[in-house]
Amino acid sequence: MTQPQEITALKKLVRATNFLATSQIYLKQNVLFKRELKHEDIKPRLLGHWGTCPGINFVYANVNRLIVNHNRSFVYLVGPGHGFPAVQANLFVEGSLSHYYPDVIPYNEDGITDICQKFSAAYGYPSHANPEAPGQILEGGELGYSLSVAWGAVLDNPDLIAACLVGDGEAETGPLAASWYANRLVDPVNNGAVLPIVHINGYKISGPTRMGRMSHEELDLEFRGLGYHPIIVDDELEEDVYVQMANAMDLSYEMINDIQTRARAGEDICKPRWPVILMRTAKGWTGTAEFGGKKLEGNCDSHQVIVNKCATDKGHLDALNTWLDSYKFHELYEMNEAGELIFDKDIQSLIPRKDLCCGRQHLSYGGEVVRSLAKPDLEKLGYGAETPRGTRGESMYKMGEWMRDAFKLNRDQRNLRIFCPDETYSNQLQAVFEETSRGWTWPIESWDNDMTRDGRVVELLSENLLFGMMHGYTVTGRHAMFPTYEAFSQVVSSMADQYCKYVYASQGVHFRKPVPACNVVLSSLLERQDHNGYSHQNPSFLGAMLEKHPHIISAYLPADGNSTLVYTEKAYEGRDKLNIIVAGKKELPQWLTLDEARKQADDGVMVWDFASDDNPDVVLAACGDYVTQEAMAALVLIREMLPRVRIRFVSVTELTSSGLGSLDFQSKPWLMDEVFTADKGVVFNYHGYPNTIKKLVFDYKGNSRFRIKGYEEEGSTTTPFDMGVRNGTSRYHLVIDMAYKLFQQGVIDETQHVAITTDMLKRLVDHGNYIKENGVDPKEIENWVWTR
Amino acid sequence: MTQPQEITALKKLVRATNFLATSQIYLKQNVLFKRELKHEDIKPRLLGHWGTCPGINFVYANVNRLIVNHNRSFVYLVGPGHGFPAVQANLFVEGSLSHYYPDVIPYNEDGITDICQKFSAAYGYPSHANPEAPGQILEGGELGYSLSVAWGAVLDNPDLIAACLVGDGEAETGPLAASWYANRLVDPVNNGAVLPIVHINGYKISGPTRMGRMSHEELDLEFRGLGYHPIIVDDELEEDVYVQMANAMDLSYEMINDIQTRARAGEDICKPRWPVILMRTAKGWTGTAEFGGKKLEGNCDSHQVIVNKCATDKGHLDALNTWLDSYKFHELYEMNEAGELIFDKDIQSLIPRKDLCCGRQHLSYGGEVVRSLAKPDLEKLGYGAETPRGTRGESMYKMGEWMRDAFKLNRDQRNLRIFCPDETYSNQLQAVFEETSRGWTWPIESWDNDMTRDGRVVELLSENLLFGMMHGYTVTGRHAMFPTYEAFSQVVSSMADQYCKYVYASQGVHFRKPVPACNVVLSSLLERQDHNGYSHQNPSFLGAMLEKHPHIISAYLPADGNSTLVYTEKAYEGRDKLNIIVAGKKELPQWLTLDEARKQADDGVMVWDFASDDNPDVVLAACGDYVTQEAMAALVLIREMLPRVRIRFVSVTELTSSGLGSLDFQSKPWLMDEVFTADKGVVFNYHGYPNTIKKLVFDYKGNSRFRIKGYEEEGSTTTPFDMGVRNGTSRYHLVIDMAYKLFQQGVIDETQHVAITTDMLKRLVDHGNYIKENGVDPKEIENWVWTR
Repeated sequence: MTQPQEITALKKLVRATNFLATSQIYLKQNVLFKRELKHEDIKPRLLGHWGTCPGINFVYANVNRLIVNHNRSFVYLVGPGHGFPAVQANLFVEGSLSHYYPDVIPYNEDGITDICQKFSAAYGYPSHANPEAPGQILEGGELGYSLSVAWGAVLDNPDLIAACLVGDGEAETGPLAASWYANRLVDPVNNGAVLPIVHINGYKISGPTRMGRMSHEELDLEFRGLGYHPIIVDDELEEDVYVQMANAMDLSYEMINDIQTRARAGEDICKPRWPVILMRTAKGWTGTAEFGGKKLEGNCDSHQVIVNKCATDKGHLDALNTWLDSYKFHELYEMNEAGELIFDKDIQSLIPRKDLCCGRQHLSYGGEVVRSLAKPDLEKLGYGAETPRGTRGESMYKMGEWMRDAFKLNRDQRNLRIFCPDETYSNQLQAVFEETSRGWTWPIESWDNDMTRDGRVVELLSENLLFGMMHGYTVTGRHAMFPTYEAFSQVVSSMADQYCKYVYASQGVHFRKPVPACNVVLSSLLERQDHNGYSHQNPSFLGAMLEKHPHIISAYLPADGNSTLVYTEKAYEGRDKLNIIVAGKKELPQWLTLDEARKQADDGVMVWDFASDDNPDVVLAACGDYVTQEAMAALVLIREMLPRVRIRFVSVTELTSSGLGSLDFQSKPWLMDEVFTADKGVVFNYHGYPNTIKKLVFDYKGNSRFRIKGYEEEGSTTTPFDMGVRNGTSRYHLVIDMAYKLFQQGVIDETQHVAITTDMLKRLVDHGNYIKENGVDPKEIENWVWTR
Repeated sequence: MTQPQEITALKKLVRATNFLATSQIYLKQNVLFKRELKHEDIKPRLLGHWGTCPGINFVYANVNRLIVNHNRSFVYLVGPGHGFPAVQANLFVEGSLSHYYPDVIPYNEDGITDICQKFSAAYGYPSHANPEAPGQILEGGELGYSLSVAWGAVLDNPDLIAACLVGDGEAETGPLAASWYANRLVDPVNNGAVLPIVHINGYKISGPTRMGRMSHEELDLEFRGLGYHPIIVDDELEEDVYVQMANAMDLSYEMINDIQTRARAGEDICKPRWPVILMRTAKGWTGTAEFGGKKLEGNCDSHQVIVNKCATDKGHLDALNTWLDSYKFHELYEMNEAGELIFDKDIQSLIPRKDLCCGRQHLSYGGEVVRSLAKPDLEKLGYGAETPRGTRGESMYKMGEWMRDAFKLNRDQRNLRIFCPDETYSNQLQAVFEETSRGWTWPIESWDNDMTRDGRVVELLSENLLFGMMHGYTVTGRHAMFPTYEAFSQVVSSMADQYCKYVYASQGVHFRKPVPACNVVLSSLLERQDHNGYSHQNPSFLGAMLEKHPHIISAYLPADGNSTLVYTEKAYEGRDKLNIIVAGKKELPQWLTLDEARKQADDGVMVWDFASDDNPDVVLAACGDYVTQEAMAALVLIREMLPRVRIRFVSVTELTSSGLGSLDFQSKPWLMDEVFTADKGVVFNYHGYPNTIKKLVFDYKGNSRFRIKGYEEEGSTTTPFDMGVRNGTSRYHLVIDMAYKLFQQGVIDETQHVAITTDMLKRLVDHGNYIKENGVDPKEIENWVWTR
């Protein structure tokens, strides 16, 4: 039962943080409000989101109370991250800011002046939650991702509770809506718990929210239907909302403990009914209630800066004075001789011990808890050196074996997960089910396969939910893979962008150490849509991600199975980045020994000597497994027709936004000439949009020699070979392009050029006619065998 | 009350369509099953998704029954679009296929043979719903968009009902989850209704669904909480599921009618409680129940092709024979003398009159019902020719005025909507509220602004929901704008990709006429994030969309207000495409008269004579409004320092994936040399990622002269000018780059080059120091005035 003194303390702490949040938005001096404000105390330009701040502070104080009462580890995720002044206020009061920034933000008036002056200022503190701020594990600002990230953070952290404040605006987004479904996926035995708190302040930027206009009964129904135990807190009910909230937090904590205790004692808990707090407090609570005949408190008009002319208008300034005065901040602290703030002992009673403050919680600093993966033995998994080139094998199946072994080797570490939108099987990773299964906390039927309460594969059909969970899992120091259909990676492109922003901004923060990479695996590639079709043909994610900082994004396009294994290993070694691995899930020819694959992975670009002639007349390059197969077939074809022509084959298996190959390769720009020759024509066959390669080689002076082929947005339900025909990446097209280059360079004469082109065009026409009349010959490709 | 004879008819129709769906998956001949199947009747390669087909057929038959009984317009959207054989089977039986494809798919055995042989075959019929199929308004395959598209289709179509089958896999996605929230937005007076039918067959590709493991009570709670009236149909209940479903459809229809009738009689219906049918029938219902000890029916193992070795294995073939035989298809039809199928009269009783068949519904063919917009008078809205160049004005506010007038002029047509994720005000389009408001069917409070039951602005904080609604609204022939924060357009990048696929595939379909463009307006641009920050700085959508077919995507980057007006008008003239307009929402200098803006819009590229010298030594180009401002400032600067140097200014306002400027401009490639000179250095200042321009000019032979500047993923909460400083697009950077070009070309000497560079670097350092010490001067930019 909540003690009256606790309520007193909560109220004081919230008064203090509301005061400090307000100060940050308005004041450049007189930040302790030691005297009445004058116009010159006000910043010249007022920016910030006031309306959501009081709710963030209210919840922060209540989370603190639970931490103090139970000495339990909490992280606090703030969905309405644009209420950053509130986050910052709490980080100040709890001492996290002065801990991490002792010189810049000391625990005194200077510190408060600093956070006020620099709030929303260029080169100051951003207006949204951000990795520069202690304890934050999400780049705030883009709404919708707080709850999925929270679920990811508590996986395999059994003692952790993630208190997650969800805004009622954010709650209207699709990604957030699907995040409620994660309660099916998280087993209470070995994982922590999420405590979602929906802040129903009723308003977005300029209008009401969906939940804001729902009755208690409707809210209760919806969340019970979703499988939660809703607890409603409402400032319009008779009981003091502070008492309501403290009781709701206690009840939630008990419920979480009860579920975990029973589960950990061996009880099988089907449908764990986690609590959710539905908290109705007014937007802009405790601010100026009305001004100029306008309702501010409890309305969207308090979303951003209210009484915003206080720098020049007396009426506005008076309102701000009254508002700030209402907090009686001076009653809440004293100063010691050094000028440090000594907060009232009630407030102090709510500050957790240092290591449990939300800004200091080590579990939110993934770099501090990360343990490298024990790595599977590639020699055991790979195709042996004796495997003839051209032997068919499966990249994704190999990756699944690697993951299976990795799960086995790291069984006790419990720091590896697969997050997959319902496609672990479909992407041919089924070998992992020899070692683990899919986690599912709702009913499991006798005929279900590979489902247990505690499986390490997290599956639901929401790319958004699962990407968010991966984000939460990796930034808290664990390792993850997100295998998905290539086309549908686009669903999370914005989430991936925000993840990259978080990681990039983190790198500049002295107290954050590198965290394991997010590994996005694209399979069910555009070429292989015999079973699906045009909707499943989309390499846009790959192209779009290759705009980010080159050290943040690496795209690996392994040419075969051994190459896939090598890049899988490399991906897990990555830190503070997002890797994209593009690999087919059906049989394709194998080209490289493990040693060769390793060598190629150093540079990401390699001349394949076994397929190349010295002193080449023309260069054929490929990036992507299916297009490599076509290119190798084109080599065979053109050599049959032009046995004396000399051809070099270049395989490209890594791309970054700054160019082809690894950053190591790119750091030696002269290598481009060495690999692609100084002056010979280059025909480049690429898996994705040709434009992607165009932008990456733009700065290479020899780029005008490049003829770049790729997916031109033509497709349907068809075979890989036919996709090549439709998009100009087939072996026949490549021969035509090489012949043209050779003709241009005078290596072959016009007669030869015409003959070859005619022959190839005839074969293309024959192909079209054949399948129109006979349907696709499923062996069309498979029958082809590499020979040299 | 449902009549027994209706149930008999429904059962017969579903038997027929289940038979035809199965035939398409397995058979290449003997498609009427006139004799027992032999191995040679089976296709060599079996592809398709069986499990979802019976549910689609079941619902299609029930929709037909409602259409027949009430002669009401329905469209039927199939969320599980990969059950295409079922869609195709119904389109065959109702005669829509033989109507649109009389020669290819006649209403006889040949027609059935055709759809069987070509199903999932290259150059045949895709395996998912697709625009080549009559009546389909969504490219099936990517899950999550059916319900939002359905909501969009019924807006301003008061007599239309969109029956929308939502798969329980699809229902796990974020976009679908948020689509339920649209019941707040659609007023029953002037709009039609959506009848959602959730097909809870319990399984996805390899495991159970969330809803599949929920109890009736939980389902009921969740949907009541969401504001619907749930009606449960379950094949495990005692009553015949056919009777249950027909009754559920009747009840739904009555509820829809009741809401609409009351609302249209003047009753204010707050919280209209639309019906939703939660339909539990087994995955793979009526197929092979078990095989080889494996549970198929009612399990994920019936997701795709079952008994898939029937071409070679006798046991498999026997099972298929038993299965097909169970439908007794031969009892359901006769043939007339011409060999045409005459279906049983019960089945015929369920075929709607021709124009109401789902495949023939003219409202699903937007091109047939489209009416062009009456267009506002630009002369009245634009900045007059007397406006001095450099005068400050607001592009987005101007666009809002255009939209306001468009709403007024087309008030009676009711064919224009804004779909906006909560940002109509924030994107400065508030002028529209002088004419219309936001639609909201839940409680409206006295202090709410611009909210009525029937507003034409559709707002909720879900980009996914609103983009889907726009898709549904435009493909059914109406006009729409989707204004959003630039950064968060990425949230719908995959939806935009799928929309483009739908439109591109539609263009090849002889019975589809062009539909109005989707107009995506990007504002709150990356440069203008004083109020927000790094999370709000992302031009990825623009870059990614510029990979699509050039006639499908146009990006307009108007340089000022008049240019924005001209492009707004042009955007609404677009058909079968997606336009992107990129425009700032704060004050920026105005450059062009309306006539100049119109002239520039022809080519999308124009030399600005008023800012250019003849016989230039160097070219400065800009694309984007903020970067144009910087470029113009750079012109002033460099001319002060180098008065004799001759500079040309080129403004680029249109981009497509094939290059700079309009397609008309691009069709005359020699114009590139004319505009950019044949040999002079070009400094190009771009709003988005430099890589985007790199890929677009790659094929231009003079591209090595281009120095391309743009957003380099550096940012925070800061001013537009400082964003330029961080990303190298500021006036100072441009002067440095121009000076380098001039030095390279020998126009200036080393001393001049060093002096200018030193001066600019000093100004950059001063800028950094200034704002670090003093904060940002809000007038820094605004004080700058264009002079020439």
